[in-house]
Amino acid sequence: MDSRIEKRLGVKELASKIVSAAEAAALIENGTVVGMSGFTRAGDAKVVPEALAERAKNEPLKIDVYTGASLGPEVDNHLATVGAIRKRGPFIADAGIRNLINTGDVTYVDAHLSHNAELVRQGIIGPIKHLIIEAVAITEDGLIVPTNSVGNSPIFAQYAENIIIELNISHPESLIGIHDIYIPGEQGSREPIPMTDVQQRIGEIGIRVPLEKIQAIVISEEPDAPSLIVPADEETQTMANILLDFFRAEIKAGRLTNSLMPLQSGVGSVANAVLEGFTNSEFEDLVVASEVLQDAVFNLIDAGKVKFAAATSITLTEELQKKVYGNLEKYADKIVLRSQEISNHPELIRRLGLISINTALELDIYGNVNSTHVSGTKMMNGIGGSGDFARNARLGIFVTKSYAKGGAVSSIVPMVSHVDHTEHDVDVIVTEQGIADLRGLAPKERAKLIIENCVHPDFKDQIRDYFNRAIEATGGHQTPHILEEALSWHVNLAKNKTMKQEVPAQA
Amino acid sequence: MDSRIEKRLGVKELASKIVSAAEAAALIENGTVVGMSGFTRAGDAKVVPEALAERAKNEPLKIDVYTGASLGPEVDNHLATVGAIRKRGPFIADAGIRNLINTGDVTYVDAHLSHNAELVRQGIIGPIKHLIIEAVAITEDGLIVPTNSVGNSPIFAQYAENIIIELNISHPESLIGIHDIYIPGEQGSREPIPMTDVQQRIGEIGIRVPLEKIQAIVISEEPDAPSLIVPADEETQTMANILLDFFRAEIKAGRLTNSLMPLQSGVGSVANAVLEGFTNSEFEDLVVASEVLQDAVFNLIDAGKVKFAAATSITLTEELQKKVYGNLEKYADKIVLRSQEISNHPELIRRLGLISINTALELDIYGNVNSTHVSGTKMMNGIGGSGDFARNARLGIFVTKSYAKGGAVSSIVPMVSHVDHTEHDVDVIVTEQGIADLRGLAPKERAKLIIENCVHPDFKDQIRDYFNRAIEATGGHQTPHILEEALSWHVNLAKNKTMKQEVPAQA
Ligand SMILES: CC(C)(COP(=O)(O)OP(=O)(O)OC[C@H]1O[C@@H](n2cnc3c(N)ncnc32)[C@H](O)[C@@H]1OP(=O)(O)O)[C@@H](O)C(=O)NCCC(=O)NCCS
Ligand SMILES: CC(C)(COP(=O)(O)OP(=O)(O)OC[C@H]1O[C@@H](n2cnc3c(N)ncnc32)[C@H](O)[C@@H]1OP(=O)(O)O)[C@@H](O)C(=O)NCCC(=O)NCCS
Repeated sequence: MDSRIEKRLGVKELASKIVSAAEAAALIENGTVVGMSGFTRAGDAKVVPEALAERAKNEPLKIDVYTGASLGPEVDNHLATVGAIRKRGPFIADAGIRNLINTGDVTYVDAHLSHNAELVRQGIIGPIKHLIIEAVAITEDGLIVPTNSVGNSPIFAQYAENIIIELNISHPESLIGIHDIYIPGEQGSREPIPMTDVQQRIGEIGIRVPLEKIQAIVISEEPDAPSLIVPADEETQTMANILLDFFRAEIKAGRLTNSLMPLQSGVGSVANAVLEGFTNSEFEDLVVASEVLQDAVFNLIDAGKVKFAAATSITLTEELQKKVYGNLEKYADKIVLRSQEISNHPELIRRLGLISINTALELDIYGNVNSTHVSGTKMMNGIGGSGDFARNARLGIFVTKSYAKGGAVSSIVPMVSHVDHTEHDVDVIVTEQGIADLRGLAPKERAKLIIENCVHPDFKDQIRDYFNRAIEATGGHQTPHILEEALSWHVNLAKNKTMKQEVPAQA
Repeated sequence: MDSRIEKRLGVKELASKIVSAAEAAALIENGTVVGMSGFTRAGDAKVVPEALAERAKNEPLKIDVYTGASLGPEVDNHLATVGAIRKRGPFIADAGIRNLINTGDVTYVDAHLSHNAELVRQGIIGPIKHLIIEAVAITEDGLIVPTNSVGNSPIFAQYAENIIIELNISHPESLIGIHDIYIPGEQGSREPIPMTDVQQRIGEIGIRVPLEKIQAIVISEEPDAPSLIVPADEETQTMANILLDFFRAEIKAGRLTNSLMPLQSGVGSVANAVLEGFTNSEFEDLVVASEVLQDAVFNLIDAGKVKFAAATSITLTEELQKKVYGNLEKYADKIVLRSQEISNHPELIRRLGLISINTALELDIYGNVNSTHVSGTKMMNGIGGSGDFARNARLGIFVTKSYAKGGAVSSIVPMVSHVDHTEHDVDVIVTEQGIADLRGLAPKERAKLIIENCVHPDFKDQIRDYFNRAIEATGGHQTPHILEEALSWHVNLAKNKTMKQEVPAQA
């Protein structure tokens, strides 16, 4: 046996389970529910799904796939586009599967990421016939050590009938030890989660499973697909500055200290760029308690700003992958990866008092946020953990540029075309135009702030006019709207390719 | 001193603080934030607010009023209609203040009931100049013992500058001992809430305050305003039966046992009637972990079905008030009242695995629920605790009749005109027509179930037609809608007094 494999395979008897990817893929039963590791393109099972996609080209195969969150191309593109996925949950981000979801070819169940584990316990997700999980090692006492994400793997492992392991020897061995696996018991006989500080370890370094469940082991050297986020620009820099000033004001008001509270920052380019904004700030001893650690977190560790970061996944661009994975020892005592049930758990988010920063696709004058559906109908990525955080955070912040699609779209509309986060869960809104601190305010008070501070100048008159006419039309109702017009900006966009009321003459 | 007062005033020095209601009302400073006890017409401060309403007739007075939840007539009618309330939170139900909210005369902040305490800690609600709290006694060691509700009083007492106590000697002494007051610490240095069973006591029997904060004591004998819910009817009985059958099927599926899980049941007539349905069922040893204990809970205790009930308030009709308060000893060891921060705490709701049953005003084909806004603009009561429960429950159930306003309104519409609970938080829907179990389903799957099982026959063709055309129009998007039409049922209702598409000829 290759010595690199030997080192990673703590339980020697398991060597007999080593098979090729194609052989492992052949074990997956058609029509079953399959759990897979992977969370935002990190720690995915890769070679077995790729072999599965090959197999599906030659024989009928359709499975339900549940993961931690979005995956790289092997599943959400290759396996999806050969038509082998019937149902998919709980989060996606690949254009391949996105298109199939929006033609009805894949059934997509969009759910709060902290809810999945309970659904597995109740058998709503399941019965899970197979779990395909990427591991960096199996320890001598039989723990499966995940790679760059934990996601739902611990609960899947507990309930899956069979486990197929992709032992990925290209991941650095120094990953061993950064995981902290804790699985809450059954509801009703469950203890409090014994964590009062993000830095506290409460679990084991890997996932404990009965070894007889391990059906096959496949050796892999495939790296994670790199994150596709784009760098900060002038506008995201402005948003970051606005947010830093807001935190400074909170400190002045006695509500925060210079190390703030544990920070959660959402997925995507905007959230990453905003977090990056801390690099040259005076804030220190920051703690990150997030779902995904994107590039910014590691840059902030390097800059001495972040002293500890916990999450369920590490998702990096190619450049940062090199820097971090080539040098993981440097970060190992400053990071921890937990299951998404724990990283996103309402119990912990509320107890620890997180500051949560997520990105909105669009929001409305009353502060309702749409994170998922373009024009109310077309799935973008899913809600992810944004609801877990926004609902339970000490401070729920949403950021978005005030416009999209080159200015044709206002990200702030009279009424969102789909609601993921209600007015009750949205404390603060930041665009490159400014900030609206909505805490303690009623809908009409909120609308004034959002319109005056956050809307793009191109849309300000138009939205002010809607709001004023809505107040008049309803005689001052709690939440004024003109229902005939509330969604007309989206209708205009579909018809005339712009939300602007005066349609520019065709070129 | 009246011996009835003497018995209730454990700290004798406080006798010097006894004043008339008018004198106490005179202490309230104009323009301040005032916290009051009271939750769904139970345990309200009554005589001081009534005196305050009198005072406001003769001099300028405008205050912000925060309570546990809705109050009886003294505040939400009398004080409101003399124009003395500027801002009000977090829940209302009186027509008096409701009208003022919907003309813009009172600013209303509708919030998740479990969130209030954190907002007080952060000073977003505040500074609280006065707390007016109804108490059944002050114990010898200085604990203020609340009456029929706890609500937000513990956190208000902690942060208020001055406390005015309405010592209500008409409440039975046997109330002493049923409260369990536990206040979480600051976020970041907070311990887990040490409760793993609803029946476990974790706090004290009253609210501990520095005695020097007690500004005045007013003796009162005013009873709580009775609850106004109406009895079960044939349709709510049908809904209860449907729900019981659902629970039976869950037991068969191995997901529940015969004592179910702790039950939360919402406010209002429908939720009460549905809970009442357990009376003649085979279920036993039920535990209630709710926000409000309405009539049904006590009837179920009498019937030997419920063995323990915890909540933050007891709200009864006149008939049940007589039965329960005349005989409280009988129930004392079976009930406990906690703060709304605890009764509604996400940490506990998730840990204990509650089954939550709340009432929707309307819902849509994808399972989004509107609990608060009639036709999207007019405030009904507020979101209350429904979001705390629906989001974190093991099983989030919403009930509603399939129609309202004598059949002119379908409670199930293409798109709700306001979202309080998103598709992600709604597991099961029950109307008198049937049940839709939405767990694990994608939007289009949900729509089919809701339409076929729950919609009233008068609206079925019409809503099926919308759904089919929406699929066609979008080419099968994740959540098909025709934005031009999505709110047209509400528009039709405003114009033609019906949601039915064929407008009946005018009589
Ligand atoms: C909302 C979300 C898609 C934004 O992602 P992002 O990379 O920061 O934002 P971008 O501004 O680059 O927008 C992404 C795309 O949406 C489009 N978009 C943005 N706002 C839009 C709007 N109001 N209407 C239509 N399209 C819009 C952009 O044009 C861009 O499209 P493109 O890929 O075709 O260029 C992303 O944050 C997300 O998936 N959120 C939901 C899950 C979540 O919040 N998880 C965090 C929990 S840890
Ligand atoms: C939604 C809620 C108002 C329903 O109350 P209810 O007493 O069970 O229900 P009813 O069917 O009697 O409806 C109450 C009123 O709303 C009206 N209504 C109901 N559905 C309607 C609809 N779809 N459109 C317009 N009006 C509607 C009814 O006609 C009735 O009006 P009326 O008072 O003028 O007769 C109530 O449950 C509530 O306030 N919920 C929000 C807070 C909450 O859920 N708290 C629970 C946490 S413990």
